[in-house]
Amino acid sequence: MESIDIKTPSKQYPVFLGTQVIEQLPFFIEKNYSDITKILIISDEKVASIHLHTVKELVEKTGKQVLEYIVPEGEHAKTFDVFYQCQSFALANGLNRKSMILALGGGAVGDVAGFVAATFMRGIPFIQLPTTLLAHDSAVGGKVAINHPEGKNMIGAFYQPEAVFYELSFLHTLPEKEIRSGFAEVIKHALIQDLDFYKWLISEIQDLTAITDEQYLYMIKRGIEIKASIVQEDEKETGVRAYLNFGHTLGHAVEGLLGYGNFTHGEAVLIGCVYALKLSQHRVRLDFDVVEFTEWVQSLGYKTFIPKQLDHASLIQKMKKDKKTISDTITFVLLNEVGSPVLVEIEDGHIMKQIEEMI
Amino acid sequence: MESIDIKTPSKQYPVFLGTQVIEQLPFFIEKNYSDITKILIISDEKVASIHLHTVKELVEKTGKQVLEYIVPEGEHAKTFDVFYQCQSFALANGLNRKSMILALGGGAVGDVAGFVAATFMRGIPFIQLPTTLLAHDSAVGGKVAINHPEGKNMIGAFYQPEAVFYELSFLHTLPEKEIRSGFAEVIKHALIQDLDFYKWLISEIQDLTAITDEQYLYMIKRGIEIKASIVQEDEKETGVRAYLNFGHTLGHAVEGLLGYGNFTHGEAVLIGCVYALKLSQHRVRLDFDVVEFTEWVQSLGYKTFIPKQLDHASLIQKMKKDKKTISDTITFVLLNEVGSPVLVEIEDGHIMKQIEEMI
Repeated sequence: MESIDIKTPSKQYPVFLGTQVIEQLPFFIEKNYSDITKILIISDEKVASIHLHTVKELVEKTGKQVLEYIVPEGEHAKTFDVFYQCQSFALANGLNRKSMILALGGGAVGDVAGFVAATFMRGIPFIQLPTTLLAHDSAVGGKVAINHPEGKNMIGAFYQPEAVFYELSFLHTLPEKEIRSGFAEVIKHALIQDLDFYKWLISEIQDLTAITDEQYLYMIKRGIEIKASIVQEDEKETGVRAYLNFGHTLGHAVEGLLGYGNFTHGEAVLIGCVYALKLSQHRVRLDFDVVEFTEWVQSLGYKTFIPKQLDHASLIQKMKKDKKTISDTITFVLLNEVGSPVLVEIEDGHIMKQIEEMI
Repeated sequence: MESIDIKTPSKQYPVFLGTQVIEQLPFFIEKNYSDITKILIISDEKVASIHLHTVKELVEKTGKQVLEYIVPEGEHAKTFDVFYQCQSFALANGLNRKSMILALGGGAVGDVAGFVAATFMRGIPFIQLPTTLLAHDSAVGGKVAINHPEGKNMIGAFYQPEAVFYELSFLHTLPEKEIRSGFAEVIKHALIQDLDFYKWLISEIQDLTAITDEQYLYMIKRGIEIKASIVQEDEKETGVRAYLNFGHTLGHAVEGLLGYGNFTHGEAVLIGCVYALKLSQHRVRLDFDVVEFTEWVQSLGYKTFIPKQLDHASLIQKMKKDKKTISDTITFVLLNEVGSPVLVEIEDGHIMKQIEEMI
């Protein structure tokens, strides 16, 4: 079992990572939260059908009352309605400030459950129990949110969990599409911070359905460490945390215009990464073998072109509405080299030209 | 002009208090928030009709784009729907992380506008511009929230403003009912912390429609100082901040059962104060002239009995659902003496008996 400490200005908390780590959860709760009386597990339909029984049985060992609330899968969990329903369920079942929320699922469940925890009676503790590879990204950093029709994650908070229990055996049940979504963030973390990690990935990972527990342990650990080192410096996203947005400027726009849920987050981000790499070559003279990269990711099943049905002007409009866009000119995270990101404002004309090279 | 610094673990900010302080607002924004591009004023129908024009004209001096969004009056502003509408308006008008919200109004406007600011793109800065006496309480402490049909302020956050500009001349337009609502919190602050302040109030204030600017300045300053000293110690309401709940345990239940908006917050809290004073005499041997107190507040127009239409068992049920109630036994803030609060668990039977003495 690995234990990584995440330090932010507002809080420090551990990420426990490995196989069978979930079995430590009841002891952790008993030891640190003896005054908690009710525990609400929020999970989604699919994850609940596979893992809820196990987790609930484990948590019931604490002797505390354990409740469950099941939300829809994926981004459908991140609506205002579902957020409100969670709050109503919690109130109807007598949760109070001595209650705790467990988020059992992927990034979407973590986002909505975390935002419920952040706002229920102005904030109660929550623990993340990620079940996806993508969640290695979302479970660290304290960003919780729901979506608005005008954009993803538009309403939310910075709210850190008490702990993350990352049970690797949960990943065995992941469909390949979900692994692909999460692995894009692993690639991103390597690209923005660690050339050796990138080299390890490109040489080790040839088949997303054959990743071993050891490989998962290493890549998730490195991904979390990289993210944590950045979040540590910049909890509220005012500075270097922007580097984590590599691939996300275009990625979010692609994801948003295709409709959340129709294209996974990671698949969209990967297209954004290819775009940002090409832009980096033109604008900051990145020396990088983009051909080798695109061949590798294509072999893993990623698309590396902008979907034909997307209107280019709409993509640019969407990027301008991104909450990280603060002026009328769009800022991209580019790479001077692998491991060395930089923020660059790009004029609309250049953005368009680069898009047209990627259809 | 008075300037009181509020220090919390997460933030320090100034409260500017006096007549014409509002005129300093544009300079404050220009000096400290030069990078802000858009400013959204959230106000309610009534306040906007009186003060919005003045404030907007002032803020426009910054040269920044100024937008306005008008919410319904009072607790009607604190619904999920209004919260969502504010978010939608902000997104539709291109607000982003370089935008700021001004909350122009009483406690309800401050609560909803503050919660919008706390959650819009995970948090943007906001400034409180209180227009009521009650807001001397709500504008300090960073508690922002909306209501749920199951209870008041059930969904919210701890989120501190950048500053509070407390323009005393705004109070001149307050109806007596509103002064009465706010003055109850002034009385509460005196009772829990400062016998001399209490003596000053009972000797100085005989007519709520004839309070002078000097009297307002003194009572608001003392009220804010008392609240600030408690919040400073306990930002997240885990300890001594509970003392601020004096009168509120029963008060919230009365307010909730009568329907928010049908009885002002302060009127309900005052009944809760009388109740807590009587309970204090029986349970912790408070030595206090409750008769003198009730005669005084009655002369100011307060009711000191529990409204007849309220069912007593429902009052107890409602108190048990309060977010500050963490076990099945209700905890009250009582007074050992004026200025010396204490938390005491009271069994249902005793609560009922005391209620029956107050009908």
